[in-house]
Amino acid sequence: MEDMQAYSSLYKKELLEGVLPFWMKHSPDKENGGYFTCLGQYGEVFDRDKFLWLQGRQVWTFSMLYDKLGPNEAWKEMAMLGADFLEKHGRDASGNWYFSLTSKGEPLVQPYNIFSDCFAAMGFAALYKISKEQKHADLALTTFENILKRKDNSKGIYNKAYPGTRPLRNFSLPMILCNLSLEMEHILGSEQIEIFAPQVIHDVMEVFYHQESGLILENVAPDGSFVDCFEGRVLNPGHAIESMWFILDLATRMQDKNLQQKAVEIMLQTLEYGWDKQYGGIFYFMDIKGHPPQQLEWDQKLWWVHVEALVALAKGYAATGDERCAAWFGKVHDYTWRKFKDASYGEWFGYLNRKGEVLLPLKGGKWKGCFHIPRALFQVATTLGELPQIEAENNSQIKKSIA
Amino acid sequence: MEDMQAYSSLYKKELLEGVLPFWMKHSPDKENGGYFTCLGQYGEVFDRDKFLWLQGRQVWTFSMLYDKLGPNEAWKEMAMLGADFLEKHGRDASGNWYFSLTSKGEPLVQPYNIFSDCFAAMGFAALYKISKEQKHADLALTTFENILKRKDNSKGIYNKAYPGTRPLRNFSLPMILCNLSLEMEHILGSEQIEIFAPQVIHDVMEVFYHQESGLILENVAPDGSFVDCFEGRVLNPGHAIESMWFILDLATRMQDKNLQQKAVEIMLQTLEYGWDKQYGGIFYFMDIKGHPPQQLEWDQKLWWVHVEALVALAKGYAATGDERCAAWFGKVHDYTWRKFKDASYGEWFGYLNRKGEVLLPLKGGKWKGCFHIPRALFQVATTLGELPQIEAENNSQIKKSIA
Repeated sequence: MEDMQAYSSLYKKELLEGVLPFWMKHSPDKENGGYFTCLGQYGEVFDRDKFLWLQGRQVWTFSMLYDKLGPNEAWKEMAMLGADFLEKHGRDASGNWYFSLTSKGEPLVQPYNIFSDCFAAMGFAALYKISKEQKHADLALTTFENILKRKDNSKGIYNKAYPGTRPLRNFSLPMILCNLSLEMEHILGSEQIEIFAPQVIHDVMEVFYHQESGLILENVAPDGSFVDCFEGRVLNPGHAIESMWFILDLATRMQDKNLQQKAVEIMLQTLEYGWDKQYGGIFYFMDIKGHPPQQLEWDQKLWWVHVEALVALAKGYAATGDERCAAWFGKVHDYTWRKFKDASYGEWFGYLNRKGEVLLPLKGGKWKGCFHIPRALFQVATTLGELPQIEAENNSQIKKSIA
Repeated sequence: MEDMQAYSSLYKKELLEGVLPFWMKHSPDKENGGYFTCLGQYGEVFDRDKFLWLQGRQVWTFSMLYDKLGPNEAWKEMAMLGADFLEKHGRDASGNWYFSLTSKGEPLVQPYNIFSDCFAAMGFAALYKISKEQKHADLALTTFENILKRKDNSKGIYNKAYPGTRPLRNFSLPMILCNLSLEMEHILGSEQIEIFAPQVIHDVMEVFYHQESGLILENVAPDGSFVDCFEGRVLNPGHAIESMWFILDLATRMQDKNLQQKAVEIMLQTLEYGWDKQYGGIFYFMDIKGHPPQQLEWDQKLWWVHVEALVALAKGYAATGDERCAAWFGKVHDYTWRKFKDASYGEWFGYLNRKGEVLLPLKGGKWKGCFHIPRALFQVATTLGELPQIEAENNSQIKKSIA
């Protein structure tokens, strides 16, 4: 247990000294508002477009840090810089969030992607905690309601599937809703969460869970059954592992020990399956039948996959005291810190090839922003820092086994 | 020159003995019609969905071979197997070609992708040459007319770009039309080609050609100017090189020596730029400003890029006698045959990592079918096999320089 606690200060130090200064320095667009996220190894802005996923997520990160780590006014200003830009430019006439904008805020790509909405809701919900401005709560709430309205056909007119031939449900939205519901609890109210949580838990742990393999599928038939096609066969170990810490948070919130245990088992099973035995690291995509996946980037090692696994393992350990979580944490920690962290110029690399060599030297891009790394560093630092307290709540048998 | 000719028989032998038997044996769906294209290393069918690009292309390949290499009835049957399936199941009510179907022919993915139409037109046009059935010519022609109608907004309702903010033209369609127009000449008539060709040549050689770098851009502003965004910066060396042999074919058809020379210069410039100096092979995607491309597969080595480069170099050499083409041909030939060809089980691998190791062991999939490899083997064998004859047409100065 003491070993695990020792990681806490390391993660907090990296958050405050290695990662946040990079974004504070390089990402603000002081001219137009919002953030630059396409940042090269040294922080240079190599593209000025604004991708809504990353704008909303960065609002969330700085709001959350202000809320949890203390009132640093620069963090609040940073959150407001993105929020004001989003409020002004982010939505179409129906309140759907665009996918991307120019640096000045002109719409570039239509709202075909509901995750723009998810991360906008998440950002404004967190901001409301520190701004106390009603308009921020309202924006989060109307966006959340719109997500629920769109959720059964989230791509809308951009859906290219021919209706009826092979209906599939995708894992991403149920997964995000597990996290978003808790992020919205102060706005939605506890009663709403208690109605909502069992539904999303059911989706993740029953519908997308594949009994036979013990793994989570990315796409299933509406009844949850396996479909033997590229989409049906694909596994995304990072998604599955990340979702297990969302489930652990819900299980803690619902005080459900069985659910905690089940989430830990799926997480460990996925890690065993997704770990690259030859070169280390977790694969990006796999095919459950061992066929060639359609994703050419299948064997790459991505930052978010690895840091989300660290969060999941820390939370799994805190919840259950399972020593397998501690052992895996050490293994993933060693790989991740050695390969992804850029000791010279701050922040972490995002994309490695199978062998763990840097594939793209960027620190941020169209999909990597100020989110997974700082959130994971914060989550691990906090989870492991609070271990004795969590520990005291566990029963004495578990205590003995992890002593 | 004799060195170059020696390749001809090697390419023809590989076509007839290494590649065609693999597709003849493993790809026919005798139950439903059409072809299986998702074939593992040994030819095993790992997915049964039917992707229209590849169905149309395989109809083309076997029709073309029957037409050019002699009346092998098995080839004609193979072409008809796909054509009948396509005719029966391939189109929506407006005559647009779906992107994919189930093995039985039920529509899976809507006609969002105009290249399904391009390859259907190409397939039926080639088939008409050997079947002489009017319905095949009619299908090719109505499809071609539909492509021209859709060409300025080929994605139609599936276009996610917000209108007006940053209009971009994409290179793929003009490029394909260079090839398709010649493939359709026996149906469209020579006069039509003489009107059409200068337009598509202008698109490729003026609009998408980037003067400053001597390279072809994938996306440009409507006036052909450079746009500094991910799409505007991306280079696809394989596309650019392949398009140069389409241009060479048009230049030969139009008897335009200057155009031949210009195409060879662009081809060689692209090879110099796109060749991986460290590990060999041609990169899949690059950024013209040297920034990280958004395509995670940017450094992979793909079969079609390499075999299309061989065709372009063979044709470039035949057209101009430029020794640089011969030297590059040897270099690309060595890499390609050593890395892609599967000497044990027939056909060629499609996807290698940067270092030239097999990334996916498949011989066919969602994007790789019976097309680029056999077409390239045929084109190189024919082009280099006819060298003396071509040579005789060249002026004596070039003759001397390549002696």
